[in-house]
Amino acid sequence: MEQTLSVSVFGSTGYTASELLRVLSGHPHVRIVNLISSSNAGRRVSEVLPPLSPIFGDELFCSEPREDYELAFLCLPHEVSMELVPSLLQQGKRVIDLSGAYRIREERAYEEFYGFEHKYVQVLKEAVYGLPELFRRDISSANLVANPGCYPTATLLGAYPLLREVKVNEIIVHAVSGVSGAGRKPRQHFHFPEMDDNFFVYSVEKHRHTPEIEDALLRSLGIELKVRFTPMVVPSSRGMVATLYIKAPKIDLKELYIETYRFEPFVFVTDSPPMTKWVSGTNNCYLYPTYDERTSTAVIVSVIDNLGKGASLQAIQNMNIMFGFEEELSLPKIPIFP
Amino acid sequence: MEQTLSVSVFGSTGYTASELLRVLSGHPHVRIVNLISSSNAGRRVSEVLPPLSPIFGDELFCSEPREDYELAFLCLPHEVSMELVPSLLQQGKRVIDLSGAYRIREERAYEEFYGFEHKYVQVLKEAVYGLPELFRRDISSANLVANPGCYPTATLLGAYPLLREVKVNEIIVHAVSGVSGAGRKPRQHFHFPEMDDNFFVYSVEKHRHTPEIEDALLRSLGIELKVRFTPMVVPSSRGMVATLYIKAPKIDLKELYIETYRFEPFVFVTDSPPMTKWVSGTNNCYLYPTYDERTSTAVIVSVIDNLGKGASLQAIQNMNIMFGFEEELSLPKIPIFP
Amino acid sequence: MEQTLSVSVFGSTGYTASELLRVLSGHPHVRIVNLISSSNAGRRVSEVLPPLSPIFGDELFCSEPREDYELAFLCLPHEVSMELVPSLLQQGKRVIDLSGAYRIREERAYEEFYGFEHKYVQVLKEAVYGLPELFRRDISSANLVANPGCYPTATLLGAYPLLREVKVNEIIVHAVSGVSGAGRKPRQHFHFPEMDDNFFVYSVEKHRHTPEIEDALLRSLGIELKVRFTPMVVPSSRGMVATLYIKAPKIDLKELYIETYRFEPFVFVTDSPPMTKWVSGTNNCYLYPTYDERTSTAVIVSVIDNLGKGASLQAIQNMNIMFGFEEELSLPKIPIFP
Amino acid sequence: MEQTLSVSVFGSTGYTASELLRVLSGHPHVRIVNLISSSNAGRRVSEVLPPLSPIFGDELFCSEPREDYELAFLCLPHEVSMELVPSLLQQGKRVIDLSGAYRIREERAYEEFYGFEHKYVQVLKEAVYGLPELFRRDISSANLVANPGCYPTATLLGAYPLLREVKVNEIIVHAVSGVSGAGRKPRQHFHFPEMDDNFFVYSVEKHRHTPEIEDALLRSLGIELKVRFTPMVVPSSRGMVATLYIKAPKIDLKELYIETYRFEPFVFVTDSPPMTKWVSGTNNCYLYPTYDERTSTAVIVSVIDNLGKGASLQAIQNMNIMFGFEEELSLPKIPIFP
Repeated sequence: MEQTLSVSVFGSTGYTASELLRVLSGHPHVRIVNLISSSNAGRRVSEVLPPLSPIFGDELFCSEPREDYELAFLCLPHEVSMELVPSLLQQGKRVIDLSGAYRIREERAYEEFYGFEHKYVQVLKEAVYGLPELFRRDISSANLVANPGCYPTATLLGAYPLLREVKVNEIIVHAVSGVSGAGRKPRQHFHFPEMDDNFFVYSVEKHRHTPEIEDALLRSLGIELKVRFTPMVVPSSRGMVATLYIKAPKIDLKELYIETYRFEPFVFVTDSPPMTKWVSGTNNCYLYPTYDERTSTAVIVSVIDNLGKGASLQAIQNMNIMFGFEEELSLPKIPIFP
Repeated sequence: MEQTLSVSVFGSTGYTASELLRVLSGHPHVRIVNLISSSNAGRRVSEVLPPLSPIFGDELFCSEPREDYELAFLCLPHEVSMELVPSLLQQGKRVIDLSGAYRIREERAYEEFYGFEHKYVQVLKEAVYGLPELFRRDISSANLVANPGCYPTATLLGAYPLLREVKVNEIIVHAVSGVSGAGRKPRQHFHFPEMDDNFFVYSVEKHRHTPEIEDALLRSLGIELKVRFTPMVVPSSRGMVATLYIKAPKIDLKELYIETYRFEPFVFVTDSPPMTKWVSGTNNCYLYPTYDERTSTAVIVSVIDNLGKGASLQAIQNMNIMFGFEEELSLPKIPIFP
Repeated sequence: MEQTLSVSVFGSTGYTASELLRVLSGHPHVRIVNLISSSNAGRRVSEVLPPLSPIFGDELFCSEPREDYELAFLCLPHEVSMELVPSLLQQGKRVIDLSGAYRIREERAYEEFYGFEHKYVQVLKEAVYGLPELFRRDISSANLVANPGCYPTATLLGAYPLLREVKVNEIIVHAVSGVSGAGRKPRQHFHFPEMDDNFFVYSVEKHRHTPEIEDALLRSLGIELKVRFTPMVVPSSRGMVATLYIKAPKIDLKELYIETYRFEPFVFVTDSPPMTKWVSGTNNCYLYPTYDERTSTAVIVSVIDNLGKGASLQAIQNMNIMFGFEEELSLPKIPIFP
Repeated sequence: MEQTLSVSVFGSTGYTASELLRVLSGHPHVRIVNLISSSNAGRRVSEVLPPLSPIFGDELFCSEPREDYELAFLCLPHEVSMELVPSLLQQGKRVIDLSGAYRIREERAYEEFYGFEHKYVQVLKEAVYGLPELFRRDISSANLVANPGCYPTATLLGAYPLLREVKVNEIIVHAVSGVSGAGRKPRQHFHFPEMDDNFFVYSVEKHRHTPEIEDALLRSLGIELKVRFTPMVVPSSRGMVATLYIKAPKIDLKELYIETYRFEPFVFVTDSPPMTKWVSGTNNCYLYPTYDERTSTAVIVSVIDNLGKGASLQAIQNMNIMFGFEEELSLPKIPIFP
């Protein structure tokens, strides 16, 4: 007989929550027992997220869990997650945190990059970084999984095979995202008439995903290097393309990348530059590694759906690993096309 | 033990085919045994439709079926479908035809609206119009289902409850579609730089969905009326909004519509005007019926995904009915959002 | 020697203001002497509207006019305009009001459709409705021009020639707009990720442009009829397509429309359905009148840029008329394409 | 009395031609005397480019010039331009060539990057590279101006001030473009339903703008360096953002850039990352230079409209310089917004 996992979703009104609920609602071994939202407690799902109505129509968001459960997904602001995680762990829950609150091991990074002091240094040390391709074994037994950021996911999957082979001090990452990565809250420059036919870089000087990438490389490969990271936003709802520039001696990258990810169910190496439309609504990552002899530079292109492999679907992949389900279970591989 | 249905898909390179394959590939009782494409025979799916690679990557399109099968989905040009259907039926196959070749019972309509003479008048008479909400019983035993056009689907679901109650001679339909409804073949005014931030009506004088709607109303309700139909295209990949204007005495439309579709799994009546984003990638139809007392006009808004309920997912709904599967099986109800 | 007209722009931070300033800044006989904004007083134009920087970079918004001027453009909320206009007129200024505050002669409409009581009934009676094609002579001598709404502009230019010929009791208008028509203030459903690939009707039951259209027809043609009006928004920054359905006896519409607008510099009758991309950034209106014999319905398609002929550029056309400049002066006729 | 310049436009059916004609038609000292198109000879402008109808409606494209003229703008395929230029020069015409046929001095580059042998090495040597900020003096007396590519324009304006100060061997350029940069010919992956919500890099291994940038740096600054160039396309009609990564000692970039371009009418240095929407339809270039101390990297962001400063409007700027008109004459500085 199949196991049924009872799940609570905290913070159910943003895009990571709606994407999580879309796929989770079709998972054969999951029962969503609590939809928790402090700001929308008492309201119906259909009011807050009309697209979810056909499945969750009459359910109410509640302020506190009302049924017991085993796993908590946190789709909360960073600081709220930081506060909530320790108590959930103490209650014996396992936690997948989609915020950035437990992604970086070095607590001082939080003051600089997130603007708050991290109070739970010990918990920080216990958190497992939820990128299955690098930390699958740790994830399977983790109580707290820090689900990676979208930019770090694309970057790390693109950088890992090469950096395992070649010693470098620095990589340049130019990463382009759809607008949903900026969250659901309306803002002037994301107002449709202004974002339509518009694109731009932002946070050129400093972005919180820089230390996250550097820390993940340190813990996975033991290498210390500097990431020069530039994010950009373009008029697309979803999608992410990270292009990595890494100085390296000539190497057969394609062979290396195919070999590294041979047994990975969601990572694909392509013969031509992949398009974000190929991954929309999926947990896939497409990699296109090339080598430029003129400038001795490896140029690696990594494509994901920022809300898929870059957030909610990777969270479900982590859940499948943590609870011993088949890792691919319920995770879409074919995108909405066109 | 569960039955497995073997299926062939003919004409596998357009948008209706890719949408069909996306959802069909996750259907627990379906095995796709032949991907047939005359224009791409011998090529791999990954070359023609890269987004399908993760599931169909190394499969080849073939020119003829190579394995036996029970059901054929036809995603072919109208005239090619017209020619193929009779022979498939003679081979004992059941057929769901996504083209327009068998949708209108009156063969003379084909010359006027499709530009070719219909050669198979007898087969035309046997075809069942595949709108489950109106013709479910016929569909269940049909050998040939003519899967409805997108505009007719949206229009008929919107018009049916009212027209069953009220006698009218005419309805006005202003229907707006995403660009995928025009097919996959590139054209000048659908070239991205020209279609972006652009919208317009077309075929104002004459559109082949007009006789289809009129005929479906005749066969479902026995009423003869004239449809004044105007289609429009807007810069969205998917989606359809049909607005119906029907002169009628005052009536409680909301109650009527809720009652009519009470047991329909994919039709929802809303409290506010529905958005196409609520149905993207689903088989849902949202209806918003209102009555304008000033002008004695029922204004009914009907929203579908033109490739979902308007094409490929309705085809799968028809398949589920024809083969006795649970009608909702595998059909997405929650859209990609955002 | 050429006259120079000194102009104040009130409410300089929305889309109608920015479009007005874009074109006004190139007008050879205009000097913009005051940029007035209560909410942004003291801030530089470049902070509030960076796209205007190259011309207005270091100018400051002020709370009150600091230089004398002859003409005021009001790009203000309706109620603020209502309050301001009488005092400006008393100061001897001429006024072009882009809000709806003086468009409808019947003051009771304001309570019902705008939600406030109109206090200046006398001024309301003096206002000239600023649609040059219908009221050019009045505009030339007006002190207060109520610049028409975008939907009424498209509708009236489309309806006028036919309604002058044929007596009807009612017209149906299905009108589709780009998102900029909803203003610059960010809102949830206009947040890019949600508006992208999304479209929907709104205000089906009641829209304030309905009485505006009805009143303008009454004052131009002396006819009383009812407008059944449905607005819709689609994922485009700009653009508007109004489709009019009018029951009428058969008539040579094309000839009639060409004849009616023969001497109009900005109205064009087309041979195929016009696209919004043809008018983007211009003061043009394209009309495509057709007659459907099957249903005895005139179907007239009217296309404008909602911020061009539908707002700010029509305001400049009115200015040219009021001050005796060449009517076409400075007004773009060729759109940004693509 | 003002001079009037008679102009011929060759190849009048693509996007560079339509943008050129839009602005040229408003230039007070220009008369367009011939619209030449071999593929559309005999057709009316309104058929081929409906948006130009209000000005050019009844004009015909002709296969050969029918009136004498002084200046030819070539909006032709590269190889056609290569063949035509020498004969035009021999006829005593001055030429602004918008193709790539005369941009690179080294004729061997054409075989490798353009796929044809350059037959006119002598003419190649006489061509002036039409980037006014670097070659204004040469342009003023040139008979043949090779109008720069869009990527090189953005890159060179961004790189020039720094490279004049600092010796480097290499720069990395990640440059993102709207779809119009790929031309007007419809293609599968630019078909609206596929390009909508889609973005991707392309030509990662080799792009013809790489040698153009390298050659322009060599001739302007005498420096030989290698450019690692990656182009990308995003779902926007227009716009271009080039991000440059240059290893350099710490330097006050902002001061340097402001100083360098102090007298340039179209180059602006910004305090925050510029958006493509700020330049749409203009000849502006916005630069945002920053220095990353952690990685000793200058990160310079350069924003233009690919069809504006990146093509047709820069061509008009060149014309103004060549014929002694005021350099800014007729060139838009305020974009369509929103």
